Amino acid sequence: MRTLRRYYIPCLVVLLVLNPAVITASGKEPVPLDESRISSQTQACIGCHKTYTPGIVEDWLTSRHSKTLPSDAVKKPALQRRVSADNIPDGLSGYVVGCYECHSLNAEKHKDNFQHMGYKINVVVSPDDCRTCHPVEVKQYQESKKGNAIKNIMDNPVYHTLVETVDGVKRVENGKIVSYKPTDDTLRETCLGCHGTKVEVKGMKKVFTKMGEITVPDLTNWPNQGVGRENPDGSLGACTACHARHAFSIEVSRKPYTCGQCHLDPDVPAYNVYKASKHGNIFSSDYHAWNFDNVPWVIGKDFKAPTCATCHVSLLVSPDGNIVAERSHNFSSRLWVRLFGLIYSVPQPKTGDTTVIKNKDGLPLPSAFTGEPAYEYLLSREDQDNRFDKMKKVCVSCHSTNWTNGHFDKLDNTIKETNEMTLAATRLMAEAWEKGIEDKTNPFDEPIEQMWVKQWLFYSNSIRYASAMTGAQDYAAFKLGWWELTNNLMKMRDAIDTKGIIRKKAAENKSKKK
Amino acid sequence: MRTLRRYYIPCLVVLLVLNPAVITASGKEPVPLDESRISSQTQACIGCHKTYTPGIVEDWLTSRHSKTLPSDAVKKPALQRRVSADNIPDGLSGYVVGCYECHSLNAEKHKDNFQHMGYKINVVVSPDDCRTCHPVEVKQYQESKKGNAIKNIMDNPVYHTLVETVDGVKRVENGKIVSYKPTDDTLRETCLGCHGTKVEVKGMKKVFTKMGEITVPDLTNWPNQGVGRENPDGSLGACTACHARHAFSIEVSRKPYTCGQCHLDPDVPAYNVYKASKHGNIFSSDYHAWNFDNVPWVIGKDFKAPTCATCHVSLLVSPDGNIVAERSHNFSSRLWVRLFGLIYSVPQPKTGDTTVIKNKDGLPLPSAFTGEPAYEYLLSREDQDNRFDKMKKVCVSCHSTNWTNGHFDKLDNTIKETNEMTLAATRLMAEAWEKGIEDKTNPFDEPIEQMWVKQWLFYSNSIRYASAMTGAQDYAAFKLGWWELTNNLMKMRDAIDTKGIIRKKAAENKSKKK
Amino acid sequence: MRTLRRYYIPCLVVLLVLNPAVITASGKEPVPLDESRISSQTQACIGCHKTYTPGIVEDWLTSRHSKTLPSDAVKKPALQRRVSADNIPDGLSGYVVGCYECHSLNAEKHKDNFQHMGYKINVVVSPDDCRTCHPVEVKQYQESKKGNAIKNIMDNPVYHTLVETVDGVKRVENGKIVSYKPTDDTLRETCLGCHGTKVEVKGMKKVFTKMGEITVPDLTNWPNQGVGRENPDGSLGACTACHARHAFSIEVSRKPYTCGQCHLDPDVPAYNVYKASKHGNIFSSDYHAWNFDNVPWVIGKDFKAPTCATCHVSLLVSPDGNIVAERSHNFSSRLWVRLFGLIYSVPQPKTGDTTVIKNKDGLPLPSAFTGEPAYEYLLSREDQDNRFDKMKKVCVSCHSTNWTNGHFDKLDNTIKETNEMTLAATRLMAEAWEKGIEDKTNPFDEPIEQMWVKQWLFYSNSIRYASAMTGAQDYAAFKLGWWELTNNLMKMRDAIDTKGIIRKKAAENKSKKK
Repeated sequence: MRTLRRYYIPCLVVLLVLNPAVITASGKEPVPLDESRISSQTQACIGCHKTYTPGIVEDWLTSRHSKTLPSDAVKKPALQRRVSADNIPDGLSGYVVGCYECHSLNAEKHKDNFQHMGYKINVVVSPDDCRTCHPVEVKQYQESKKGNAIKNIMDNPVYHTLVETVDGVKRVENGKIVSYKPTDDTLRETCLGCHGTKVEVKGMKKVFTKMGEITVPDLTNWPNQGVGRENPDGSLGACTACHARHAFSIEVSRKPYTCGQCHLDPDVPAYNVYKASKHGNIFSSDYHAWNFDNVPWVIGKDFKAPTCATCHVSLLVSPDGNIVAERSHNFSSRLWVRLFGLIYSVPQPKTGDTTVIKNKDGLPLPSAFTGEPAYEYLLSREDQDNRFDKMKKVCVSCHSTNWTNGHFDKLDNTIKETNEMTLAATRLMAEAWEKGIEDKTNPFDEPIEQMWVKQWLFYSNSIRYASAMTGAQDYAAFKLGWWELTNNLMKMRDAIDTKGIIRKKAAENKSKKK
Repeated sequence: MRTLRRYYIPCLVVLLVLNPAVITASGKEPVPLDESRISSQTQACIGCHKTYTPGIVEDWLTSRHSKTLPSDAVKKPALQRRVSADNIPDGLSGYVVGCYECHSLNAEKHKDNFQHMGYKINVVVSPDDCRTCHPVEVKQYQESKKGNAIKNIMDNPVYHTLVETVDGVKRVENGKIVSYKPTDDTLRETCLGCHGTKVEVKGMKKVFTKMGEITVPDLTNWPNQGVGRENPDGSLGACTACHARHAFSIEVSRKPYTCGQCHLDPDVPAYNVYKASKHGNIFSSDYHAWNFDNVPWVIGKDFKAPTCATCHVSLLVSPDGNIVAERSHNFSSRLWVRLFGLIYSVPQPKTGDTTVIKNKDGLPLPSAFTGEPAYEYLLSREDQDNRFDKMKKVCVSCHSTNWTNGHFDKLDNTIKETNEMTLAATRLMAEAWEKGIEDKTNPFDEPIEQMWVKQWLFYSNSIRYASAMTGAQDYAAFKLGWWELTNNLMKMRDAIDTKGIIRKKAAENKSKKK
Repeated sequence: MRTLRRYYIPCLVVLLVLNPAVITASGKEPVPLDESRISSQTQACIGCHKTYTPGIVEDWLTSRHSKTLPSDAVKKPALQRRVSADNIPDGLSGYVVGCYECHSLNAEKHKDNFQHMGYKINVVVSPDDCRTCHPVEVKQYQESKKGNAIKNIMDNPVYHTLVETVDGVKRVENGKIVSYKPTDDTLRETCLGCHGTKVEVKGMKKVFTKMGEITVPDLTNWPNQGVGRENPDGSLGACTACHARHAFSIEVSRKPYTCGQCHLDPDVPAYNVYKASKHGNIFSSDYHAWNFDNVPWVIGKDFKAPTCATCHVSLLVSPDGNIVAERSHNFSSRLWVRLFGLIYSVPQPKTGDTTVIKNKDGLPLPSAFTGEPAYEYLLSREDQDNRFDKMKKVCVSCHSTNWTNGHFDKLDNTIKETNEMTLAATRLMAEAWEKGIEDKTNPFDEPIEQMWVKQWLFYSNSIRYASAMTGAQDYAAFKLGWWELTNNLMKMRDAIDTKGIIRKKAAENKSKKK
């Protein structure tokens, strides 16, 4: 404790001197930073952290949070509001949103709450904390597939098997490949890096910092910013997956680079396809002249081509102020069909928690092994149409109805054909199983099975993305597209034929030896 | 018709109120928008479309077209001219280039012309329409390989077979892979997405829009912006492939992202190589300070490293105003050799239509199966030198002659060596054919054949691009380069050896059964 | 000589008229260009080169070199200094750093020095020349692995064999693949493009330029900007690898695109991983508002997320002016462990020249075939900790100590597990050798061996990068990660089993024939 006090005392007495010039230069809000609007607790935080972790203090100083009183934020005209709460709790409404305002909320639920320099602080700020000012967004998010992303991968036995097969260390023991259970660390930097980890408090531990030794909660699977993270307060999700700490810049989350952290080639090449599309080209060439900060986001004025957020999330209005799309943090709310992560592309599920689905094979997959959709758990035709209409309203802000229909008719055909190409691979794999060439117990751990996985998880996905966006033909052709779909089938056929003969020969050799 | 009139009447009477503040903010032209310079027809278009497709109206408002009278454009000094016509038809010269000016041209040739709200409108604006003001560019373009891109792929039986093999749906029927003819939709989003589709008018159809039901031409293979598109007026090409509607920003077309829509890894990794090159690094790091709008484009003042357009298209001058390179929309006019899309790299062809070529095997390919060029159809040594000199003039604006020679000597060697590596693969494939391991009828549909395709279509291409640009060594080494070229040969050898034995064994088994 | 004089005379009399408007527009220095500060020799250079290679003259005009007197540069406060020399030679201190100041240094050592228009000019400016003003940086650099990059690849028999195996032309002769020695040109555009070539003077040669015929040194392996280049003055390195000529912009070298020229997927996917990481996302989204030119570089003020340079090179201070990290041009000075280019990841070596290492197999590799580190040549635990602490000081400028520890604990586990996955592949390859399926003489030239190479050179590397940076999960999962690591082992096992039987069969067939 001696080492601690050495730093602790000066921190408390340090004067909060913030450089207003810098704030003016970086901040986009007209309101300059005003110390009287910062709570005394947050002032204390900053007093030390401007020395010990200056980067995040500076980052926060450029944020809208650092310059906005929640009490002002709720008074904005409906379309311009960035908070969805009608009332802000008294203690919070009169100060800007600083360190303490977020890191002290709902302390009773936070198993990661700890005594830190005289304050009770949560290490992890969760969606349930953000809910205080942004309840509509958090509700939408937690109902989405993203908000259920851990469960959707780890509580589904099929995907769980894929995860275990891929991520476990293999050792060669007596010439055999023996697979071990994946470690938490490896899960955290592969699948759960995006899907989210389970962050629990194991106890307390001492860490040696620039301030000396301090005692902090010992968290499992931390750090992690996966979209479906399970937090120490029991909530699901991580707003910081897209709204990077501590500037929480809407500009960052509206730019495609944010989505590109997870939606990448080869399994989810949304970002790669976007970049190579006409929309992506216009964005890359022209975005410096656009406004990524405006709410509502005005089509044609603020931007001239959509980013991911435009089509999937943001509140959009036309230049004359009419709403084109409502904001939604359920990222499927304008989507009728699922393009990736599935063996066959089928309509969106009714619920963000997809583990409730049961296909005719008895598995929590939205289609059977042979492609038949589990309709009962999927959107009705009418609901699909409603979602399609929401998306189409965005498209027709720039494109004619005829153009837009022609575009989506093509997508319909692509879904049908890529599903057929997956079915062809499924049939070949089934043949390999029937002939005893591979073993169906685990459908992911042998060479022909792995070709089957690539057929749907990489190639069909990629083609559907290229179809859904404008352009990026190489992702439908040579990159991860039809060339690979076709080549892969040939290789599967070849492997079955070759191994059929090899197997026979091996069996003969064995019987000869006897 | 009731639903239609409901919207139609208010449109006609709506006043054209354009927000001048925005136009000033986004526009680069000093001339502010002036309604008296907009034709009454275009005013009528905007009257409705600012409500129904506001994005494109806003986009056009930022364009040079929206603020320039053709009559002024032709008066500019020669080097600053952006139009190549000497005379503009009377009806067009006195108004800015608006909706109606482009979408009403040559109506008699346009099978896609239709009655729309009292006006006769073409759906598709074609190069033959753009020719009105830009005749030199259109002529150059239509003589280029790009302008003939549909024909060059679909009317060449070799490439056509590749397209059909790759893009057709395959089904597994009785254990056999059966390939079906590709659908138009899949062709449109793969090969023809870049090469261009054939857009024809099938008839008229009704579409339900925000305005109600309207009747519009029913177009095949639409939308599409492929470079060689066959248009409903019979012309070839799509200027919009590079000059994105409706801002037609020269900045966009001069930035590499535009070229990157089609010239991508793995078959045409020009953009990938550029990005990883020294030139691409300087562009990415520094372009915010450059001028992408200036005509002529001044070396060293407007930009400090070339983009694709610099070397291949743009009119370039030195800071003292001397012409370094003439503008050309025949993208091969500074190229002497072809690096991609061919089995062997050979000199540029004499004509943009490459289907006229006949090699010694009797096929429309610029070299024979064993690499011998079809010299008769290719540039003479002298013509190659002339083109090389044009390119070199660009290089030596920044690099010494010695440096530049050293650079291109390396390229010569690379072309030779990659051709040798392709020939090695060709020989192995021929061996596989001779031994009956694969069947030469279709050279693209079996595993060893597909390895052969990768040798030239992916790896040799990639290395040549890395050689032709400065740097991007990984595209010559491990990415899609020598590592793959070498590895691929080993795998081909291995497959032939393995299958030779397997085949023999299978034959034995068969004869035993008898 | 007639042609030469024609151009030469006008050059000498041409007046140096530099456009001050442009300089002000582009330059970041307050000091305007002042001709009296340009040496007469450099004025003569510019007199011609502004006509003959205007691009580089304009580039230089935007540089700090063109506006700074070394005598002023040395007087700056210590933290703001960009030169590390305490004294500048008299002849150089009073003029800005122009063409002649750099291209005439140490002429006696430069075998590439030649008579050029009355001046003695070096073609290649080497680190030993830059050392005049930047001695600390050059010393650090030449002690680094980068500075020894040619030697480390070409004088190490293992890597040399890999290079020769990959880069040599292969011909199919009598059905056999015969590999030839790589040509210098191909080495220069593959491995040595990044590692650096040996540039020697073969003699003099005539080149025909815009000025007529001139005589210049005939250099081998030129042009090249590889990091470890061997220069005609005997020195190692190329500062221009990162500091692009002739603006030498610190902005360019601090942006990740510079590192991305060589540190690319699949063998060194540092740049790819960075782009897809949270840090990369914030950089891409927000960098337009940052200051890449400031020295020292202020965390939180000048930038809000690190680039490559931040963590590995730059002098960093906190907003209150405290040093967070010293500048170092030995890029390993904050690194304790090596992540790429090795069979197994082990601690950093004691010396930048890694050819001095000897593992227990007697080879200059930092670990044995089975993974055992050659500890004697590697950093001690204490030295590793010192370097780790340097890096961690950067991290904790934004992240808590707890967060940072959790991050690096994960990396430790990843290194352990990827080494195990490599070892599994090594064991399988050893089995293939033992069974005579492949031949160990050259461990890089057969299919199973090439799978082994991919295990460590591509996949393990990629996962470690994804682990070391924040995010980029796809590079640890499906892109080049665990999916591939696992899949590859299965394929190796499969190939050994299949070929074992095939080999047996082939042997039987042979004996039957006898």
